Amino acid sequence: MSLLVIGSVAFDAIETPFGKTDKIIGGAATYISMVSSYHTDDVNLVGVVGEDFPNEHIELLQNMGVNTDGLQIKEGEKSFFWSGRYHNDMNSRDTLVTELNVLENFDPIIPEAYQNCEYLMLGNLSPQVQHTVISRLRNRPKLVAMDTMNFWMDIALPELTETIKKIDVLIINDEEARQLSGEYSLVKASQKIMAMGPRFLVIKKGEHGALLFHENYVFSAPALPLEEVFDPTGAGDSFAGGFISYLAKTDDITFENMKRAVIYGSAMASFCVEKFGTERLVGLTHTEIENRVKAFISLSSVDISLAN
Amino acid sequence: MSLLVIGSVAFDAIETPFGKTDKIIGGAATYISMVSSYHTDDVNLVGVVGEDFPNEHIELLQNMGVNTDGLQIKEGEKSFFWSGRYHNDMNSRDTLVTELNVLENFDPIIPEAYQNCEYLMLGNLSPQVQHTVISRLRNRPKLVAMDTMNFWMDIALPELTETIKKIDVLIINDEEARQLSGEYSLVKASQKIMAMGPRFLVIKKGEHGALLFHENYVFSAPALPLEEVFDPTGAGDSFAGGFISYLAKTDDITFENMKRAVIYGSAMASFCVEKFGTERLVGLTHTEIENRVKAFISLSSVDISLAN
Repeated sequence: MSLLVIGSVAFDAIETPFGKTDKIIGGAATYISMVSSYHTDDVNLVGVVGEDFPNEHIELLQNMGVNTDGLQIKEGEKSFFWSGRYHNDMNSRDTLVTELNVLENFDPIIPEAYQNCEYLMLGNLSPQVQHTVISRLRNRPKLVAMDTMNFWMDIALPELTETIKKIDVLIINDEEARQLSGEYSLVKASQKIMAMGPRFLVIKKGEHGALLFHENYVFSAPALPLEEVFDPTGAGDSFAGGFISYLAKTDDITFENMKRAVIYGSAMASFCVEKFGTERLVGLTHTEIENRVKAFISLSSVDISLAN
Repeated sequence: MSLLVIGSVAFDAIETPFGKTDKIIGGAATYISMVSSYHTDDVNLVGVVGEDFPNEHIELLQNMGVNTDGLQIKEGEKSFFWSGRYHNDMNSRDTLVTELNVLENFDPIIPEAYQNCEYLMLGNLSPQVQHTVISRLRNRPKLVAMDTMNFWMDIALPELTETIKKIDVLIINDEEARQLSGEYSLVKASQKIMAMGPRFLVIKKGEHGALLFHENYVFSAPALPLEEVFDPTGAGDSFAGGFISYLAKTDDITFENMKRAVIYGSAMASFCVEKFGTERLVGLTHTEIENRVKAFISLSSVDISLAN
């Protein structure tokens, strides 16, 4: 099935205890699209960059099978730039630079050929822009999934609340779920958030895995215990990409299949953190992916025969 | 199979956001023994209390099937007393009072009838006392499991290191594993700790479940997402009790069976936190336990067919 991905396409400069990068390709839509290209050959990107964005970055996406007809290139403007430094534990980071540039007045134009996409992934962006995308689609996609972050809860909660009403799956981390709901217990948080609109909620817990909520069902996916996290940048977007593209590929939005999608999302995120930026997401083989998924399955598989 | 349990038998006074208790029955050996009584009728406790310890508490253990012949009652002395207050998130607590009392000079005497116990659970106590117990057993048990805490790493690391050399399974939490190994990554921590002696390592992660390590194998057990944690006191001991007594019951110490034991431990811990102190651990039915185990299994079960 066809997948529409919207989000930032950007420059990142990253420092971790293992080293630092120059300006490399980054952005939510970049990670989501790259990861999705392993599951469906119908990935359609909407985003915006400045004229400083190298053509080779766009060609990389195209070579991976991503349709970039919806990527606007703004003459005389600069691309979104983020720079950050991770602390030793890799669980916290300082943002060093955020230059919105082209994102400041981003008007998400949907190419006509994208109009009938069945699956929509709204990468982290202002909730107004996410809302505009939904409203510009003539037919509602079969499934709308959305990522957001605490920044938007701080400065644009009413708009965020409006957008959340219109989606099917919200994908956020535990801290964001607690902030959005005002509840510390993730079970209570999930109930409050699902009452705000989305029928499904994924709560990412980093090194502790992820939880999928739907009605009264819960699924707990493990995280692969890693010796080393090299660079966490893009892990959440890679998760979202693995999740939504597995659903688009299988075209099955039952809870049972979403559980599988969470495993695929987790597997793709586990690749992402092994190298800087998007490096590890280029040139993956299907065997590597399947083996990683197997590792996730065996990690939490246990065979218990119960008396009753 | 027979199980020998050593640890504190004590008074606890607990404050949580939900209320507070007077002095109630507590202590590692109390929780471990109570929980173990659901899996084996051959639970043998070694511990010490003062003459202030009510006979009804001892009778409660006996009525649950725990052999208390190894529980010393010190005339003219007072029982170990701990008092603590949990913060709103239930993940941190302040210790208000610690009175060692009888524990200060605890000499763990092993009744002759306990000598051939096949399974040994060393509840959290000074590593010297834990070591003494091992050395006083004429035959080494089939499996020796041990709990400890950061307090002993701070004040008795050489003794702790000596004791750890002699055990099979170490059960600690993530923070303790990081302190003991000096490694932040739990994978690296597990390798260092297993090199110190234990062939198996369980790392408890509270609301994030538990990891079981053995050689190059890892198993990730989920935690049940709970609406409310009423009182976390004893959860770790209940885990240890569920874990060791399942192994004693099934008499199978393969990695596969230890995975099941981790699930049983997690299930028993999930009961423990539902009420104050040991309250929820009294009068459980086997159906309740099996249903809880089923809930854990279904929480992380996913059915994926892979191409290769």
